[in-house]
Amino acid sequence: MKPINIGLMGVGTVGGGTAVVLKRNADEISRRAGREIRLFMAANRDLVRAREAVGPEVELVDDAFAIVNHPDVDIVVELIGGDTIAKDLVLQAIANGKHVVTANKKLLALHGNEIFARAQEKGVMVAFEAAVAGGIPIIKALREGLSANRIEWIAGIINGTSNFILTEMREKGSGFAEVLAEAQRLGYAEADPTFDVEGHDAGHKLTIMASIAFGIPMNFEHCYLEGISQLQGRDIKYAEELGYRVKLLGLTRHTEAGVELRVHPTLIPESRLIANVNGVMNAVLAKGDAIGPTLYYGAGAGALPTASAVVADIVDVTRLLTADPEHRVPHLAFQPDQLKDLRILPMDEVVSSYYLRISASDRAGVLAKITGLLAENDISIEAVIQKGSVSDGSAEIVLLTHRVVEKQVNAAIAAIEALDSVKAPVVRLRMEELNG
Amino acid sequence: MKPINIGLMGVGTVGGGTAVVLKRNADEISRRAGREIRLFMAANRDLVRAREAVGPEVELVDDAFAIVNHPDVDIVVELIGGDTIAKDLVLQAIANGKHVVTANKKLLALHGNEIFARAQEKGVMVAFEAAVAGGIPIIKALREGLSANRIEWIAGIINGTSNFILTEMREKGSGFAEVLAEAQRLGYAEADPTFDVEGHDAGHKLTIMASIAFGIPMNFEHCYLEGISQLQGRDIKYAEELGYRVKLLGLTRHTEAGVELRVHPTLIPESRLIANVNGVMNAVLAKGDAIGPTLYYGAGAGALPTASAVVADIVDVTRLLTADPEHRVPHLAFQPDQLKDLRILPMDEVVSSYYLRISASDRAGVLAKITGLLAENDISIEAVIQKGSVSDGSAEIVLLTHRVVEKQVNAAIAAIEALDSVKAPVVRLRMEELNG
Repeated sequence: MKPINIGLMGVGTVGGGTAVVLKRNADEISRRAGREIRLFMAANRDLVRAREAVGPEVELVDDAFAIVNHPDVDIVVELIGGDTIAKDLVLQAIANGKHVVTANKKLLALHGNEIFARAQEKGVMVAFEAAVAGGIPIIKALREGLSANRIEWIAGIINGTSNFILTEMREKGSGFAEVLAEAQRLGYAEADPTFDVEGHDAGHKLTIMASIAFGIPMNFEHCYLEGISQLQGRDIKYAEELGYRVKLLGLTRHTEAGVELRVHPTLIPESRLIANVNGVMNAVLAKGDAIGPTLYYGAGAGALPTASAVVADIVDVTRLLTADPEHRVPHLAFQPDQLKDLRILPMDEVVSSYYLRISASDRAGVLAKITGLLAENDISIEAVIQKGSVSDGSAEIVLLTHRVVEKQVNAAIAAIEALDSVKAPVVRLRMEELNG
Repeated sequence: MKPINIGLMGVGTVGGGTAVVLKRNADEISRRAGREIRLFMAANRDLVRAREAVGPEVELVDDAFAIVNHPDVDIVVELIGGDTIAKDLVLQAIANGKHVVTANKKLLALHGNEIFARAQEKGVMVAFEAAVAGGIPIIKALREGLSANRIEWIAGIINGTSNFILTEMREKGSGFAEVLAEAQRLGYAEADPTFDVEGHDAGHKLTIMASIAFGIPMNFEHCYLEGISQLQGRDIKYAEELGYRVKLLGLTRHTEAGVELRVHPTLIPESRLIANVNGVMNAVLAKGDAIGPTLYYGAGAGALPTASAVVADIVDVTRLLTADPEHRVPHLAFQPDQLKDLRILPMDEVVSSYYLRISASDRAGVLAKITGLLAENDISIEAVIQKGSVSDGSAEIVLLTHRVVEKQVNAAIAAIEALDSVKAPVVRLRMEELNG
């Protein structure tokens, strides 16, 4: 059979890794796919660097449109990133009837609805395993492995940079800024780390997972994002004293009222497997009504792990290249006419447990006042620790609440902050048991 | 489109769960599959019990051959188990051109080569996600998710009964017999627990995973099986002192010399995620050359979790029902003509680290003699603890070795046991770092 011709757009870290995997494992891959899959053409702005990565036999161009318009390219692999040029290229590839494999979470989270609609019209596949959690086959697991389930919720550690920072903050007791600088030195964080540490990247990935889990369109514009840059070491320490770890979680839950879609630092019981996912590793915990909780763990980034997902997609697409569209797995897991536009809940309506840290004058009666205000807002308390007075005569009260609607907690916090004896904003972190 | 008619053979725990999932999640399932999937017919010896499970509208028979021979059944689901009648039924279904979904690990580990050959000839699919690790989509992950990789090794906690027993032995310090009785009371262990606690069940599952990971035929007859019934509480305790957990692992590794295929109690560093998989839960850790280590965790048994995998297979088969066979994922991950009959290594040639416990007279010089014998066999020592004398004047020496070929360890053990001062057989457990 004729080999499959891959057109690779973007020969950076993941593009280079994809070239390596396609070449190094060519034999295993063709033994699985039933035909040869070869890197036919590659596009990169820096041709010298690209030549080093792809070897002498691959046609190299600096204009990626030459790939999407080339008649002999069977599958276009988009590893440029972002949602400007990459979007034009992907749409042009689709318009030309080419199948697309992409690792571009931002593109899909922001423009997936348009892209999948176009792909559907043209009868081409857009595969995106590498867009979420690097090499972990989480798209396949959610879309196919759990297809018998009503998926109830998903919680993921899906940003390696943030997880590395949180792991170091806990293990070394260092502050955010210090660890960020170390992560930048090690190449785990960008010079401008906003995208990773403020939850944008996790939000893109979460948006994609929510879509395929619940059969809803991409809803990134309604995704709540709260990063880790404001997190203080003492809260990680207090959480640990209470038996919890703090992780940046992407969390989406299907409730009767709508869909929760939120990224924020979260306390998780330390006995959960996912609480022990450390360093740059990723993990996704998904709860289905039949399967119960199930976890997927692995490298969420890096050249070869991400290439592993890109090439797995290439093999899947290759297998179905000449098959009728009806034989393919729908892009968003559910048939296109079966997507439901469920309401994404505003944060006020989200239900969670909470960690509250309150700095108060160390006066008799302040704890009673605070717990009284919580009771007035129907918030019951699971645990409380009071830290002895510090030099200025103030004390710290740390409370864990039971589950409650967020707007009630906000109301209680406003009332607490209005107390004379409370001298600083209340620190509020969300807490999830992740057990059902 | 015409609904897909499922013929269910065996309405026990998993069969009943499958009926529940198909009915309860009918809407989600058809929104994904693009057509209705309905339980059309079921076979069970106890018709009263089966009627309760499948409801009034399903045709019930006591002879499962009526299902495999029924012209309107599209997919046959085999949940009878064992390799006698189930084998006849599956082969007859294939001969009749019917697609098969099965959870039967024993059948596939023992007769998979024949079954898949017949299925290939007849152009039908035999899907078996539920045969390994219950609901966890591990077959899909290994066969499709990691298709870009040379898979190097797989280590799995794939028998819930054994894992429950080991967890209880560690947490409560109880002996094997005592915990087994408790497991039997809770329904986690059969009246005759041999199949689970002696590693047979894990061996069947491991055989299937090795086949799809490395592209080799089923080799159960060469799988080494060592269970947990001889395991002593003190070894679990000593292992813990040294920073290890003892798990019944199914372990398969692709080496230059051949394939290791072995089930036995194994020491694992407690910092590994898989070492913290407790109770009846299952987990599989797979290492690919591109993706690195990746872990899959969930319920390995039970009505609904296993049904989750059965129904996911039904959806997959439904999707490809009318597609050309070339569009399907090959049964054993690699194209049938691309399987390689690699040599399964005898245990003598396996490479591992070891935990050795030696009961010796508490005499000066005995440790020197033992370490001398290890050195003579080129075995280097990673750690050693000596436990103070017990009442009869003997001492226990616990050693951890570096990696070495098993026959050398056996030679050293024989020499150690020949020492005058050594008064009981040496306890030997294998140890794996699972880090690369």
